[in-house]
Amino acid sequence: MALRRERSDLAIDPKLVESVLTGFIGEETRRVGRRRVVVGLSGGIDSAVAASLARRALGARGVVAILMPYRLSHPSSMKDARALARRLSIRCEEHDITAAIDGYFAGDPKAGRVRRGNKMARERMSILYDRSVVHEALVLGTSNKTELLLGYGTIHGDMASSINPLGDLYKTQIFELARHLRIPAAIQRKVPTADLWPDQTDEKDLGMTYVDLDQVLHRLIDERWTRAETIRGGWLAAMVDRVLARVRGSQFKRRVPLVAKVSARTVGIDFRYPRDWGT
Amino acid sequence: MALRRERSDLAIDPKLVESVLTGFIGEETRRVGRRRVVVGLSGGIDSAVAASLARRALGARGVVAILMPYRLSHPSSMKDARALARRLSIRCEEHDITAAIDGYFAGDPKAGRVRRGNKMARERMSILYDRSVVHEALVLGTSNKTELLLGYGTIHGDMASSINPLGDLYKTQIFELARHLRIPAAIQRKVPTADLWPDQTDEKDLGMTYVDLDQVLHRLIDERWTRAETIRGGWLAAMVDRVLARVRGSQFKRRVPLVAKVSARTVGIDFRYPRDWGT
Repeated sequence: MALRRERSDLAIDPKLVESVLTGFIGEETRRVGRRRVVVGLSGGIDSAVAASLARRALGARGVVAILMPYRLSHPSSMKDARALARRLSIRCEEHDITAAIDGYFAGDPKAGRVRRGNKMARERMSILYDRSVVHEALVLGTSNKTELLLGYGTIHGDMASSINPLGDLYKTQIFELARHLRIPAAIQRKVPTADLWPDQTDEKDLGMTYVDLDQVLHRLIDERWTRAETIRGGWLAAMVDRVLARVRGSQFKRRVPLVAKVSARTVGIDFRYPRDWGT
Repeated sequence: MALRRERSDLAIDPKLVESVLTGFIGEETRRVGRRRVVVGLSGGIDSAVAASLARRALGARGVVAILMPYRLSHPSSMKDARALARRLSIRCEEHDITAAIDGYFAGDPKAGRVRRGNKMARERMSILYDRSVVHEALVLGTSNKTELLLGYGTIHGDMASSINPLGDLYKTQIFELARHLRIPAAIQRKVPTADLWPDQTDEKDLGMTYVDLDQVLHRLIDERWTRAETIRGGWLAAMVDRVLARVRGSQFKRRVPLVAKVSARTVGIDFRYPRDWGT
């Protein structure tokens, strides 16, 4: 049956992936004259994998973990994040964002949870970038490919970073890499959540399981299947359409701001050279 | 003399530029199903020009001005911003960021002004994006081409936006457009400043005048002159080198986060379709 056969496409060689990603972190950090990264540890699997890779690439003194709890964060989140930092022997800072968030929404008590969640994600981004200056570090990204493609994240919030070792790995592949990296079981077993409000889970938000999402995305994006081909491959039309709509509707989160073109060379359009321009 | 002759290259046809930019704002806003933009009014010329263009493109109900003063903002900034909003008959909201910024740095009183300035820029971004949800609006960008090329701005701060009508106009061209749009004289006459600390001015920060910067940038970027050609054209080597170093050193601010490539199609590398992907 097609569905079963497809399930194997996403297998990775975890040792090879580890070596590519630690190489990426080391090279990109040194290329800009830095030796360190800061990473926001949420207690979840993505940031745990990113921190572990950075620890292998840059050593214990090359990684600073930043914990940014909010009063509604799950109690296990900070406990698991602290335990991971101890296990990796990396420096760990805590910056509670409760006062900043509650202060902002004090005059607007009816603000819904999505607005609150976005404000939290952006406050955390802002703290990570500030601490990166203090530590002369880059901001290590933790968004995975599933999130990036679906736009399941906050633009200029958790989707922001200097370098992102996880952005080309689907969520199910992150789980596989986590097993290889021996991420603590408490983190591996956790139900994926952005932890922005109580009882939030990714799969509830997205309306599909990660196993299904990753399969459909892999067909559409990596294998360039059309909608019709993907449906013929065994996937429900409603599911495929929902994924397509999310990918299309979130393109703006994956690009630089759209600039109105009025000259010969325009930032983000025809002036977007790699870092080595002009050298 | 070459220098004098070059000075005419940056002349614009303000009426044509106005028509292109109002068309851009109107089309890009409607394309994503919106009818409104929010714009942070600082009291400076860039945001005044952006707001005036949006007012012409979308009407008075299509623009919401957001004023976000800090306790050290120049007193004239908010006065001029309010006067402009009144003149354009657009809605105007004020969100003071003093408590958020001073609260954050309370535990770190030695933090320097650049860190404080970046935190302010990111807090303002975060507020603009939050208010854009409330008003079902896009965030209108106000970064000009000089700033974008030199990286003179805060990534995920003032450089963040949904659409940016000014990003392909050099600062000196913004001044020309402002005259055409009859921006109030108090704003046109003001010495350009990010207004992040007292007595800050752009030209002091950048170490060159905008007239010189725009000429050198235009040669290097739009006309693709080499370093040697630009120097032969009459510009001091030290000046050209300083501009080149800034453009190269700020590439990271003009691109999406660097993702480690491990698959066939990677976000930001070979999956960066325009908005209409798959339709």
